Amino acid sequence: MNAIDALVKKAREKNAVCLGLDTKEEFFPEYLQKKDIPLCEKMYEFNKKIIDATYDVVACYKVQIAFYEALGLEGLRCYKKTLDAIKEKGALVIADVKRGDIASTAACYAKAHFEGDFEADFMTVNAYIGIDAVEPYFEYMKKGKGIFVLVKTSNPGSGDLQDVKTADGEEVYMKMGRLVKKWGGDFAGSEGFSALGEVAAITYPEEFKKLKAMMPGTFFLIPGYGAQGGKAEDIAEIFKDGICAVVNSSRGIIAYHKGKDEGENFSALTREAALMMGEDIKKWLK
Amino acid sequence: MNAIDALVKKAREKNAVCLGLDTKEEFFPEYLQKKDIPLCEKMYEFNKKIIDATYDVVACYKVQIAFYEALGLEGLRCYKKTLDAIKEKGALVIADVKRGDIASTAACYAKAHFEGDFEADFMTVNAYIGIDAVEPYFEYMKKGKGIFVLVKTSNPGSGDLQDVKTADGEEVYMKMGRLVKKWGGDFAGSEGFSALGEVAAITYPEEFKKLKAMMPGTFFLIPGYGAQGGKAEDIAEIFKDGICAVVNSSRGIIAYHKGKDEGENFSALTREAALMMGEDIKKWLK
Repeated sequence: MNAIDALVKKAREKNAVCLGLDTKEEFFPEYLQKKDIPLCEKMYEFNKKIIDATYDVVACYKVQIAFYEALGLEGLRCYKKTLDAIKEKGALVIADVKRGDIASTAACYAKAHFEGDFEADFMTVNAYIGIDAVEPYFEYMKKGKGIFVLVKTSNPGSGDLQDVKTADGEEVYMKMGRLVKKWGGDFAGSEGFSALGEVAAITYPEEFKKLKAMMPGTFFLIPGYGAQGGKAEDIAEIFKDGICAVVNSSRGIIAYHKGKDEGENFSALTREAALMMGEDIKKWLK
Repeated sequence: MNAIDALVKKAREKNAVCLGLDTKEEFFPEYLQKKDIPLCEKMYEFNKKIIDATYDVVACYKVQIAFYEALGLEGLRCYKKTLDAIKEKGALVIADVKRGDIASTAACYAKAHFEGDFEADFMTVNAYIGIDAVEPYFEYMKKGKGIFVLVKTSNPGSGDLQDVKTADGEEVYMKMGRLVKKWGGDFAGSEGFSALGEVAAITYPEEFKKLKAMMPGTFFLIPGYGAQGGKAEDIAEIFKDGICAVVNSSRGIIAYHKGKDEGENFSALTREAALMMGEDIKKWLK
């Protein structure tokens, strides 16, 4: 099955939760902070326990490569091992890499994240550069991979460029949405959504609704839930016609155990947090 | 000396040439293609010979990480070794990573590319996300590092978003340019340029001139020269008031030896190609 169909099915059948492995040392339970092993081994132990405790209750994982890249080669080795641990469980993984470059270079990024050491099911892409930053992924999408293009991001300054009004009265992020819609037309899966999805943040619910209305066949990756301020009520409106997205949460799930369970079994609470978030979303679904 | 001042001085005193290490197997001389060592070792040998032959005649190197990331962990080990080889020669290096993410994540990318294994002097940044994608670099810029933000890229589809007209009659790339100008105001170096520079392509000379007119204190990284169609004549206009940029060329320099010298001393021709490109630019300077 291709990745987008598998993701849609998991989001419907399990939870629409995307568990973000933005792994930081401060999230480690105390037993792990004190353990006498290198930082990157701690990161892997932390991730592995979380994956083993949650793979059957989340739609997918999103691994933010920056947290691993920051630690150099050893960090990237941990990134690879984390992806391997997810794939071993038959779970889906979004490589949150936000790469974006001209065609020959984008082709290298496609190879980097859809083959070999860092192979993922999906990757996030920045298309400021235009179609050339996206087209090299098409051949992988034909073989079942998927991408999510940044349209409206969750951060406070996301309006700096994205909210600039264009000559015909729309904002820049709507233009980006229209490009994504055009580019993604050929990649419709059997569950009603294109393998070319979109990143749009729940921290800007009005903007999200405008995008969704324009793009009924687009599956969304939604950041900004929980720690960044996004609320389940906002998701109610978005999901009123059915599940059209996975909602990412990182800190809210992977740091939930802090102050509650600092021992080796901390990840039982991680599972609980993932399930609670899933229920929180489900109660707003009609 | 901070990186931007060092770069401006080198561009003035040596050549305004930025040598792009977009290293591909097809560029290897035949002796290296036939050598019985792993691909990543060949890449390093190729890069090392080029660096040793050119470090005293170019302003800086730009290493496109995608070509290394495509080869997984071993590729990134070669990326690190390549950066080390450049730094050992006292030369400047731009990490062409085009990263762009929200604040806490951008802080990780800053750490990744301004410290540790992958430390570079400059990195390229994609600011579609807004100020949050740029601000985490400021603390490193105060300590002497620099960044180049994508404004107008060299690729055929760069107009898809960048040329969209905004409500006040400017294009999106001009808005991005204005953001860069605003953000970069606090980082003026002693050579007259900000440590927050800009990527603008010579393949779009009219757009470049508009940007330059708006931003006299901005130093540019110019892609698109040579193989991508940019011409030295276009640089004449840009450099008429003095050197305000480094001009990147990759294939035109690092594949120049192909069909001419396929042996171990191929890089004597690489040096020749870098010098020729420098002369080509200089003859248009007043």
